[in-house]
Amino acid sequence: MSLDEALRKPQDRLADLLSAEMEAVNLLIRARMASRHAPRIPEVTAHLVEAGGKRLRPMLTLAAARLCGYTGPFHIHLAATVEFIHTATLLHDDVVDESAKRRGRPTANLLWDNKSSVLVGDYLFARSFQLMVETGNLRVLDILSNAAATIAEGEVLQLTAAQDLKTDEEIYLQVVRGKTAALFSAATEAGAVIAGAPEEHVRALFTYGDDLGIAFQMADDLLDYEGAAQDIGKNTGDDFRERKMTLPVIKAVAQADAAERAFWVRVIEKGQQADGDLAEAMALLKKHGALEAARADALAHAAKARAALLSLPDSPMRQCLADLADYVVSRIN
Amino acid sequence: MSLDEALRKPQDRLADLLSAEMEAVNLLIRARMASRHAPRIPEVTAHLVEAGGKRLRPMLTLAAARLCGYTGPFHIHLAATVEFIHTATLLHDDVVDESAKRRGRPTANLLWDNKSSVLVGDYLFARSFQLMVETGNLRVLDILSNAAATIAEGEVLQLTAAQDLKTDEEIYLQVVRGKTAALFSAATEAGAVIAGAPEEHVRALFTYGDDLGIAFQMADDLLDYEGAAQDIGKNTGDDFRERKMTLPVIKAVAQADAAERAFWVRVIEKGQQADGDLAEAMALLKKHGALEAARADALAHAAKARAALLSLPDSPMRQCLADLADYVVSRIN
Repeated sequence: MSLDEALRKPQDRLADLLSAEMEAVNLLIRARMASRHAPRIPEVTAHLVEAGGKRLRPMLTLAAARLCGYTGPFHIHLAATVEFIHTATLLHDDVVDESAKRRGRPTANLLWDNKSSVLVGDYLFARSFQLMVETGNLRVLDILSNAAATIAEGEVLQLTAAQDLKTDEEIYLQVVRGKTAALFSAATEAGAVIAGAPEEHVRALFTYGDDLGIAFQMADDLLDYEGAAQDIGKNTGDDFRERKMTLPVIKAVAQADAAERAFWVRVIEKGQQADGDLAEAMALLKKHGALEAARADALAHAAKARAALLSLPDSPMRQCLADLADYVVSRIN
Repeated sequence: MSLDEALRKPQDRLADLLSAEMEAVNLLIRARMASRHAPRIPEVTAHLVEAGGKRLRPMLTLAAARLCGYTGPFHIHLAATVEFIHTATLLHDDVVDESAKRRGRPTANLLWDNKSSVLVGDYLFARSFQLMVETGNLRVLDILSNAAATIAEGEVLQLTAAQDLKTDEEIYLQVVRGKTAALFSAATEAGAVIAGAPEEHVRALFTYGDDLGIAFQMADDLLDYEGAAQDIGKNTGDDFRERKMTLPVIKAVAQADAAERAFWVRVIEKGQQADGDLAEAMALLKKHGALEAARADALAHAAKARAALLSLPDSPMRQCLADLADYVVSRIN
C-alpha cells in the first residue's frame, strides 16, 4: 500500500473497505430501533446511535464474514445485533456509573431520566435477540447469548471487584472480557460461523477478537495512569479516584511491603484519599515496574491477536485487522 | 371433582398437577442463576426468586406443553426462561418505580443498590436467552424474543402514556400487553410450539394466555379504584396519585364535559391534587359507568380465555386453566 494509505488509521481503512455493507447495517439499525407506539425509544437511541460512535464492533463482524468468503445476507443482521447489544450496554452503564457525559455529549440518563435509559436499553437487548433469531443459525445464537451473559456477569463482578485489594489478574481479565473483549470476540466469531468457515478459522477469529479487546482495555487502563488528558478524553487518575482495581494497581499491590499495603488499604479499600496520594500511587507503580509490566501484557495480547490472523488467507482486509491490533496499543507504545 | 377440590384456588390445583415438573424447573433456575465469579448475582436473585412468587408463568408453559401431549425435556427450559424474564423485569421495574417493597419485603434496589438491580436484571435476561437457545427450536426463539420486545416497548410506552389524557384504550391495551399479557401468551404459546401442537391448538393457547393476562391486569387496575386495601396489598387510589391512565379513567375522560375535562387536566396532566380529588374522581367514574364498563371488559377477556380452551381435549389440566380464567376476575365479580 502507499505511504498515505499506511498512515491512515486502520479503522478508517476498514470503514472504506466495508462502506456498502455498513450502509446496509445503518439502514437496518434505524429501521429496527423505531417504535410505532413509543416515540421515546427512537429519541433516546438516536441520541446515542447517531452520536458518532466508530461502529467498530459491527465492522469486525462484517470483516470476519468477508474474510471467510461469506456471500449471504445475514452478516448485516449480526452486525446490527452487535451494535444494539453495545448500545444497550452503554445506556445501562451510564445509569450504573451515574455518568453525565459520553463522547462529549450529555448522556441519555441526564437528558431524559434513568427510567428511560433502563427500559430503552432493555428494548435494544430484545431487538438484538430478534435480529439474531432471524439468521436462523443456532450456533450464532449460542455464541451471542453466551457473550451477553459474560458481559452482564463481568459488569456485576466489576461492582464487587472495585475497592477490593484481593482482586487479582484472573478477576481483572474476567472484568475486561465483560467490559470489552466478550463482544469483540463474539462479533468476529459469529461472522466466521455465519460464513460456515472451517473450525480453524472460527477459532482464529475468536482469538483475534478476544485478544484485540483485552489489549484495547489494558491500554485504556494504563493510559488512565500515564496518559495526557487530551489524548484519551478523560483525566488521568479517574480510575484511582474511583478506587478501581486495574492492572497497574493489581501488579503494584502484589509486590507491596507492609507500609505500601497500608497505603493501598487506605486509598482503595477505605477510600480515604488526600492531596498527593495520586502522586504517591504513581511512585509506587514506577518503583515496582507495574506500568512497564502492564504495557508488556497489553502488547503481548495485541501480538497474539495479530498472529491469530495468519491462519486466514492474506488480503487487504486481513492487513487492516492486523494493523488494528497494533493501533489499539500504539497509544502506549 | 369433589367440593373440597372445587373450592381450592385453581393455581394451587395447577401446582399439584405439575409438582414434579415444577421441582425440575426450580432446580434449573437455581443452577442457572448461580455465578462462579460474581456472588452478588445469586444474592440478589435468591432474594427475589425465593421470595414466594406464585410461579404462575412457568406453570402456564408446563400446562400448555402437557395439554398438547409433550413428552420431551425442553418445556422445563422454557418454563425457567419465562420465570427469568419475569424476574429480570421485576428487578428493572423496581428501579424504574423507585419501589421500596415487593411482596411485602424490601426490594433489591433498596437492599443493595440500583446498579446491582440493573446489572443482575441484564444477567437474568442473558441467562434466559441461553436457556431458550438450548431448546434448539427457532420458532420458540421467535416467540420469546418478540415477547421480550413487546414487554420493553410497553414499559417505555407506559412512561409516556401516564399523565397524558390522550392515552386511549388502544394504547392502554399495548401497555397491558407489555406489563402482563405478552409474557402470559408467550408462555402458553411456546409450550404448545415445543410440543409440536397443530396450529389450531397453538393459536388457542396463545389466545388463552393473552386474554388471561389482559383480564388479570384490567381487574387489578379496577381494584385500584374500588378494592379494599387488605385484598390487593396496595392502597386504593395509588394509580390516581401516580396519575396513571388506566381503563376506568380513560372511559370517564372519553365522556367528560368541559368542567370534568378541566378536572382531569388538573389532577392527571398537571398533577395538582388536593384533598377530596380522589372522591371527586370516584364520583365521575360512577357517573359515567366507567367502573361497570371496565368490569365488563375484564369479564369479557376472561370469558374469551376460557372459550379458547374448548378446542383442546378435555382434562383436569384444561379445567384448571379454565377455572384460573374465572379466578383472576373473581376479585371484581
